[in-house]
Amino acid sequence: MTLMEMAQRGQETPLFTLVARNEQMNVQLLMERVAAGRIVIPYNGHHKPQKPQGFGLGLSTKVSASIGLAADEDSLTDELFKVDEAIRAGTNAIMDLSTAGNMDEARRTIIKRVPLPLGTLPVYQAFAEAVCTKGSALALEPEDFFKIMERQAADGVDFMALHSALHSGLFKTAKADQRVLNLVSRGGSLLMGWMLYHGKDNFLYTMFDRILEIAQKYEVTLSLADAMRPGAGADSLCRSQAEELVVLGELVKRSRQAGVQIMIKGPGHTPPNQIATTVKLEKQVCQGAPYFVFGPVSTDVAPGYDEITAAIGGAMAGAAGADILCYVTPAEHIGYPDAQDVYRGVVAARIAAHVADLAKGYPGAVNWDLKMSQARREQNIEAQKTLALDRERLTGFQSGEKPFCKKCKNACAMAVAGEFFQELPWEC
Amino acid sequence: MTLMEMAQRGQETPLFTLVARNEQMNVQLLMERVAAGRIVIPYNGHHKPQKPQGFGLGLSTKVSASIGLAADEDSLTDELFKVDEAIRAGTNAIMDLSTAGNMDEARRTIIKRVPLPLGTLPVYQAFAEAVCTKGSALALEPEDFFKIMERQAADGVDFMALHSALHSGLFKTAKADQRVLNLVSRGGSLLMGWMLYHGKDNFLYTMFDRILEIAQKYEVTLSLADAMRPGAGADSLCRSQAEELVVLGELVKRSRQAGVQIMIKGPGHTPPNQIATTVKLEKQVCQGAPYFVFGPVSTDVAPGYDEITAAIGGAMAGAAGADILCYVTPAEHIGYPDAQDVYRGVVAARIAAHVADLAKGYPGAVNWDLKMSQARREQNIEAQKTLALDRERLTGFQSGEKPFCKKCKNACAMAVAGEFFQELPWEC
Repeated sequence: MTLMEMAQRGQETPLFTLVARNEQMNVQLLMERVAAGRIVIPYNGHHKPQKPQGFGLGLSTKVSASIGLAADEDSLTDELFKVDEAIRAGTNAIMDLSTAGNMDEARRTIIKRVPLPLGTLPVYQAFAEAVCTKGSALALEPEDFFKIMERQAADGVDFMALHSALHSGLFKTAKADQRVLNLVSRGGSLLMGWMLYHGKDNFLYTMFDRILEIAQKYEVTLSLADAMRPGAGADSLCRSQAEELVVLGELVKRSRQAGVQIMIKGPGHTPPNQIATTVKLEKQVCQGAPYFVFGPVSTDVAPGYDEITAAIGGAMAGAAGADILCYVTPAEHIGYPDAQDVYRGVVAARIAAHVADLAKGYPGAVNWDLKMSQARREQNIEAQKTLALDRERLTGFQSGEKPFCKKCKNACAMAVAGEFFQELPWEC
Repeated sequence: MTLMEMAQRGQETPLFTLVARNEQMNVQLLMERVAAGRIVIPYNGHHKPQKPQGFGLGLSTKVSASIGLAADEDSLTDELFKVDEAIRAGTNAIMDLSTAGNMDEARRTIIKRVPLPLGTLPVYQAFAEAVCTKGSALALEPEDFFKIMERQAADGVDFMALHSALHSGLFKTAKADQRVLNLVSRGGSLLMGWMLYHGKDNFLYTMFDRILEIAQKYEVTLSLADAMRPGAGADSLCRSQAEELVVLGELVKRSRQAGVQIMIKGPGHTPPNQIATTVKLEKQVCQGAPYFVFGPVSTDVAPGYDEITAAIGGAMAGAAGADILCYVTPAEHIGYPDAQDVYRGVVAARIAAHVADLAKGYPGAVNWDLKMSQARREQNIEAQKTLALDRERLTGFQSGEKPFCKKCKNACAMAVAGEFFQELPWEC
């Protein structure tokens, strides 16, 4: 039985109890929402992450960090250090997006190391192996893909990104849209090239039942990706994006009918005035499926600072109902992120997620802010360090200095104001 | 005649022509809005900034950076370097908030150096001089203040922050509010202490006509500050903040009647779900006066990253109609900003301002994003560098590398997809 089916039958398991307690949610409510697909808990039985995470309605907004081998010469040690940095910075999930090197070894090592839900994008490995063994991504056969998908599932991958909604019916609209950046989704581009070359439809769509079978067997949560994800603000909410979303909505239904947990991936580059619309459209068309957005990057013009453009977009998206924010690092658009970029990307996304939680009224969010403000009132440096979203950043913070304090000989104006409010005595 | 009066009489001056042209606004519309107080152009005749800036309805969202001597031992050279860094990072205005050292020398040097509107907070100097010469800020006499205000105006200060709406009628509410952080406004605290000690009302309020006279004489734009600015998310939109806003609205009327340009300063710490309300409330109560917000800092819990918490808040505030974003640096809440913090603070605020401009539909904002996306489509590195909001950041950017490219021997899947869209040939 899958987690969704257990929730539907009202079987309270320690996993539901734990996630509900961590989130200050009534366990019955949590299970109702898992049963209805409004909440997912990616939890492959072959991994059983020590720190399971729920994503969805009424839970805190989560953050996911992506790492992976991008070239055969990349070192696994470097990627593992990035994983550690992402965890230290407080990510809620890790995605291994390796496209080169020994991908099996990388994934297995990362799964063992990560106490959080671990995600992959299995067509990356499938295409990469086709290139290595057959000389071209176009030589991939659907069975190759399913072997890799099952291998990854058996290794304990908790959630998988799949471009199942990309089908050939979308191509006409995609071409007519004349987008500035046609396809920025790597997996989507490769799949589309494969489909056009072979004159066949997308096996991730036509063979979706096979995907559901593997997902059922290993309790893999599906994370359906948007091949038509806009890569430019100008392309946001174009017709092909909307058309793909309609198909995603269909697949949400099929997945839920199979008892398979499913979430939906979203953009990408989205101007601020279209972010709430994008989120609310997904929530409606995909029947409340948890929404996993990539940023969104709220403007195209600030390369080198996309952790900030995405923090702005992520806070807006989260406030509108998005559930998981895929981090964007300062290296986005200009290079590959190093460990420092990973750390900074996670922290920026966590800030956005927390701002979203304040807007959503997530239990405890307002109280965290309140405690920090009280610590400031009391000039309690240690409490401020403990409460800081990134404690590391405050390591050297010692200052209790009062701005403007000249130790007035005769009398202190600020002390007079403080006394009126019956504040603690002002110490000059 | 003041600028506002000239606009009211329809006298088109080169200043109006220049500002209108820079902002792609019809000059008649600009003048109508200056006449009505919806737009201000801080432009002291004794400074005449070479790069004048308009703030307000239909203009691009602006950024202001604050620097200044904070201790007698601070070096003016260091502060001038911060000024240069703020300008290099693209600020639209500078505030000299010096509270120590040779404040006259600092201000005069900075005014000469800065081709942008220069603002001050004259009670800082007034109180600081009272401390030096009389041993206590409480010994300040109103005439001392007016001498300093006029000295600053004669030096060419373009806009001045004044806590004129803080009057003793607000104290009862302020105490009853039991805010977490009673007063975080330094100038407000000093004034309140002074008022309580002397049992007198605030001379910035009771003698507002004197302020208007000086402002008229030197074309100083008033920037009325909010002494009750919330310093904690929990204190946002408390009764004392709202009550002070009502008084600010009264002073906007009086200022406009005197032909004196006026804008209103705003928070401060504001949770995301209260930001739009805060801006819209100011716009209504203060009859559309340009709103100059400090951040706003959207969550209290991320010290060390307040350029990000403020970028999120600033984008939301700007999208709701705020006109100028006072930068917040990464040093906020933990120390004094160095030159690097200043640079980073300005860039983060500029990102927020541009995201706000996208939301506002400011002419050219969408087009800037479009050009950057087109440069990405064309893999034109030089164009991306030229278009980047912070070009410095992209100095070392060389990469034209294609992710996932393995130079497939047999055929390239991405090329097949690209050909479908009639993209440029894919170069492996």
